[in-house]
Amino acid sequence: MITTDICIIGAGPVGLFAVFEAGLLKMRCHLIDVLPQVGGQLSEIYPHKPIYDIPGYPTIKAQELITNQMEQIAPFEPTFTLGERVEELIKQADGSYHVIGSDGTVIHCQVVVIAGGLGCFEPRKPELANLAHFEGKNVHYMVKDPEQFRDKKIVIAGGGDSALDWTVFLADIAKEVTLVHRSDSFRGAPDSAEKVYNMAQEGKVNLLLSHNLVSLNGNGKLESISLTNKQKEELTVPTEHFIPLYGLSPKLGPIANWGLNIDKNAIVVDTFDYSTNVERIFAIGDINTYPGKLKLILCGYHEAALMCQSAFKYVYPDQKLSFKYTTVNGINAF
Amino acid sequence: MITTDICIIGAGPVGLFAVFEAGLLKMRCHLIDVLPQVGGQLSEIYPHKPIYDIPGYPTIKAQELITNQMEQIAPFEPTFTLGERVEELIKQADGSYHVIGSDGTVIHCQVVVIAGGLGCFEPRKPELANLAHFEGKNVHYMVKDPEQFRDKKIVIAGGGDSALDWTVFLADIAKEVTLVHRSDSFRGAPDSAEKVYNMAQEGKVNLLLSHNLVSLNGNGKLESISLTNKQKEELTVPTEHFIPLYGLSPKLGPIANWGLNIDKNAIVVDTFDYSTNVERIFAIGDINTYPGKLKLILCGYHEAALMCQSAFKYVYPDQKLSFKYTTVNGINAF
Ligand SMILES: Cc1cc2nc3c(=O)[nH]c(=O)nc-3n(C[C@H](O)[C@H](O)[C@H](O)COP(=O)(O)OP(=O)(O)OC[C@H]3O[C@@H](n4cnc5c(N)ncnc54)[C@H](O)[C@@H]3O)c2cc1C
Ligand SMILES: Cc1cc2nc3c(=O)[nH]c(=O)nc-3n(C[C@H](O)[C@H](O)[C@H](O)COP(=O)(O)OP(=O)(O)OC[C@H]3O[C@@H](n4cnc5c(N)ncnc54)[C@H](O)[C@@H]3O)c2cc1C
Repeated sequence: MITTDICIIGAGPVGLFAVFEAGLLKMRCHLIDVLPQVGGQLSEIYPHKPIYDIPGYPTIKAQELITNQMEQIAPFEPTFTLGERVEELIKQADGSYHVIGSDGTVIHCQVVVIAGGLGCFEPRKPELANLAHFEGKNVHYMVKDPEQFRDKKIVIAGGGDSALDWTVFLADIAKEVTLVHRSDSFRGAPDSAEKVYNMAQEGKVNLLLSHNLVSLNGNGKLESISLTNKQKEELTVPTEHFIPLYGLSPKLGPIANWGLNIDKNAIVVDTFDYSTNVERIFAIGDINTYPGKLKLILCGYHEAALMCQSAFKYVYPDQKLSFKYTTVNGINAF
Repeated sequence: MITTDICIIGAGPVGLFAVFEAGLLKMRCHLIDVLPQVGGQLSEIYPHKPIYDIPGYPTIKAQELITNQMEQIAPFEPTFTLGERVEELIKQADGSYHVIGSDGTVIHCQVVVIAGGLGCFEPRKPELANLAHFEGKNVHYMVKDPEQFRDKKIVIAGGGDSALDWTVFLADIAKEVTLVHRSDSFRGAPDSAEKVYNMAQEGKVNLLLSHNLVSLNGNGKLESISLTNKQKEELTVPTEHFIPLYGLSPKLGPIANWGLNIDKNAIVVDTFDYSTNVERIFAIGDINTYPGKLKLILCGYHEAALMCQSAFKYVYPDQKLSFKYTTVNGINAF
């Protein structure tokens, strides 16, 4: 069991900034996110795109903002559980909470902060009859541990950044990499596409453009994938693993079942401190709603700051909070 | 008369960011501030100090944040009236406002945004009997136009950054600069102090440490200043101008007289859009108050964003506002 003061569900920009504001008040944080990396929508959907409305940054790439935020919170030594979805919150007799992850992780905390954005990112799946049959064994919707593909034959499918980036990365690790894409050009960054084209020419990657998936073959264990080309000719590629990277789309998911007031897929909060209808549970960032709410990163930052003022009383019930400026007191303010 | 969509009173970090959020919605802004420079408390009180709680900046010097914000809003071409205090808001028949400055400037606008921080910065004045007699002529509490001191004899008083910085700067312009400070060491940045010590040794500045001001002499026009040293010996320095730079301290000032709900020196607002009790007048940043309010820069940024959503309907009464991301639409979002 992991023990912490505040368990933050969602490691997007808002969850990450909450670690900073909590840290100023000497509250420790553990973050849990279903994605294998931090950064929420920014790292998952648009890492290379510039954002223009982060105050003080005329422009900053999404991933760079996340990197800077990680540096900003490093002094407070947050801990992380990545690649695990939160399924349940269990209230303890003393008011504290157990946060339960899908792989059995249990986090004991005084305060739960839901910074779950648009919800749990869930993979877009290809429509293949016997997909479920191989899930969790030979079919992977994200790459959590590249080492599991060492010296294996793999097929990657997709035309965006993830498909391109993982093709380049896994070509060095796997025994054989095939990249299948139904169109004849890529949606991902042009220089990543360039790299893949070059690797294909050098024979390091087996590139199948304008190919459609037909079926996964194998009995219990994946053995090959059948495809068709533009001319509807069928082709079979032997493989041990299949990694369809068609992007992730968010779904509110388990959050809907925790007894919180929900309005249009968002958790209703009080703007005094972004508390929910359940004591000790707060909601900040894209996941919450209140009169005037804008789903902007900068709004989540504000919500994180106000939330911490109230969270404090559950972590330090006997102490009085005094407000101090970082400029005057540094980041060891409290 | 200056005509604009939104008149922002106060060019601190929050007023400046409002220009950006307004600009995204194609609303033009004019800013007016009693200080001769933009940046509010950051530029006036702690320009060289690092701030640690600007999201995405592990650390940034206060003045650097202001410089970056100026760059961020440059595409929207805001206009400025600096060194002028807003005295009055006059409602026009059509609901729009005239914002009246202390030097007679009139700004016609559809919406007034008060981003007045802790209020009007007012100079701390030395206690000298006939000070008022020379104010506005030979006594200056801030340097608005250095050129007015070209080839003049001047006396600067004070021991902080402003006194040091202006001594160094004006030494090249004025005929003779005397710096008077009652202590024997400076409060300002060590390297600025170093510069002044060196200039004193080279005879470029007349440095009088451990001296107290006794009186201003002259009939109608300033002629000299009398001082005493530690041994209480009197000394008279001939001068044409006296510039006491003892810092500025904020006072709510005229804002208190505009018919707004005020609670403990702050304007009461609705967190839906940071509107005040008077239609078309909004208040954001340190100047406002609401349940949970924290006087933090990052909170003012959020308030600016939400405010603009409501300001829009006064500037474009016939248009519908649609919410867009800068990443997707750039800064010409609307
Ligand atoms: C294309 C695009 C462009 C954008 N441009 C801008 C812009 O220019 N400016 C701007 O301010 N905003 C922009 N946004 C919006 C911005 O990305 C969001 O406001 C921001 O990501 C919200 O941050 P967050 O931390 O609240 O949530 P998110 O970034 O969504 O992170 C939430 C995290 O919670 C995790 N999670 C959810 N439920 C669970 C669960 N049960 N268990 C475990 N983990 C869970 C998710 O996996 C996710 O990682 C844009 C969004 C998109 C899609
Ligand atoms: C020493 C110190 C350290 C700080 N450290 C931090 C920190 O680490 N983090 C943080 O978030 N905050 C910090 N703060 C607070 C921060 O500076 C304020 O929250 C911020 O300046 C508020 O911005 P603002 O734009 O609302 O107002 P201000 O910066 O106060 O600007 C308001 C402007 O309005 C002008 N004005 C007022 N009335 C009138 C009028 N009638 N006519 C014309 N002009 C007018 C003033 O001259 C001023 O320039 C600190 C403050 C101080 C003093």
